[in-house]
Amino acid sequence: MSNNQKGFVLWFTGLSGAGKTTIADIVEARLKDRGSKIEVLDGDVVRTNLSKGLGFSREDRDTNIARIAFVANLLARNEVPVITAAISPYAETRDAARDLIGDEKFIEIHVATSLEECEARDTKGLYAKARSGEIKEFTGISDPYEAPTSPEITIQTEGSTPDESADQIFEYLEANGFLASELEGAVA
Amino acid sequence: MSNNQKGFVLWFTGLSGAGKTTIADIVEARLKDRGSKIEVLDGDVVRTNLSKGLGFSREDRDTNIARIAFVANLLARNEVPVITAAISPYAETRDAARDLIGDEKFIEIHVATSLEECEARDTKGLYAKARSGEIKEFTGISDPYEAPTSPEITIQTEGSTPDESADQIFEYLEANGFLASELEGAVA
Repeated sequence: MSNNQKGFVLWFTGLSGAGKTTIADIVEARLKDRGSKIEVLDGDVVRTNLSKGLGFSREDRDTNIARIAFVANLLARNEVPVITAAISPYAETRDAARDLIGDEKFIEIHVATSLEECEARDTKGLYAKARSGEIKEFTGISDPYEAPTSPEITIQTEGSTPDESADQIFEYLEANGFLASELEGAVA
Repeated sequence: MSNNQKGFVLWFTGLSGAGKTTIADIVEARLKDRGSKIEVLDGDVVRTNLSKGLGFSREDRDTNIARIAFVANLLARNEVPVITAAISPYAETRDAARDLIGDEKFIEIHVATSLEECEARDTKGLYAKARSGEIKEFTGISDPYEAPTSPEITIQTEGSTPDESADQIFEYLEANGFLASELEGAVA
């Protein structure tokens, strides 16, 4: 596959705790298993390495996402597949990323776990802190989340496992020519 | 060549006006002519896209250079050659970039044009502004520049043309196995 590697960006978006990173990690591991290149620009990694000092105002969130898009584009245009897994709450900012990277390489994945479910899971205890006011500008509680209106993929995590969600992404990639199907790979 | 592309980072360092971008542009064009991938992380481009808001204190300069190194590493480890062309005045910060990217892929290029020559050229009028105090923290005038002690390549622009400087870089790349020589390329 290394001979016909295609660049693309799996642009995850969804609330905190929706499952973006969990699913992204599975997709990353499976792509590596297939011999594909893959880079993951996780929200936390990017805030450490590219956006230290930025906060969570609209302007700072937009700057953070624009930087992710800038780096994702550098990689994707060199045939390196990229996964981004930041909340990226603003539709206009995601659309700017799509314009920069190119519609044909930009795969928006809405991890559509409901606020109620994310808050019930509250795996990091952040929703409790947001409700108490200890954390300000928390997406879904005290800051907006604009769900995509026409994402390439919508993932419902309530009622399916992370592995099934990853299956759904691979079906999309194979059906749209970003990856050869595993069957073809086995035959070749 | 696309089948055995190697990742490497041509890390230019030198004073403002030394000729880094001029030489980098020639190297970029020649690499593209050979069918190589190449990305240029120019100081100005990076300050616009990754480091807006950062100033020129030691801390801000270090943050800027660390971001360049982070992105250069993402590309180089995916076999995409990179040119960085920021002043990068601090030896310790350049050494941290070398450690991150890997000594075997990191090619430090000192564009060693003297301060006197850079100031005499003053192509952007910045030295005059630095001398008058209109620009603060200007490398070489009111801010330090720590020249590399053992760069892979040292370029003397006084007495040689930018094309000759680019020749010197290609000789290094071919001699060290980063590129096939043009002769080999022609035969293959």
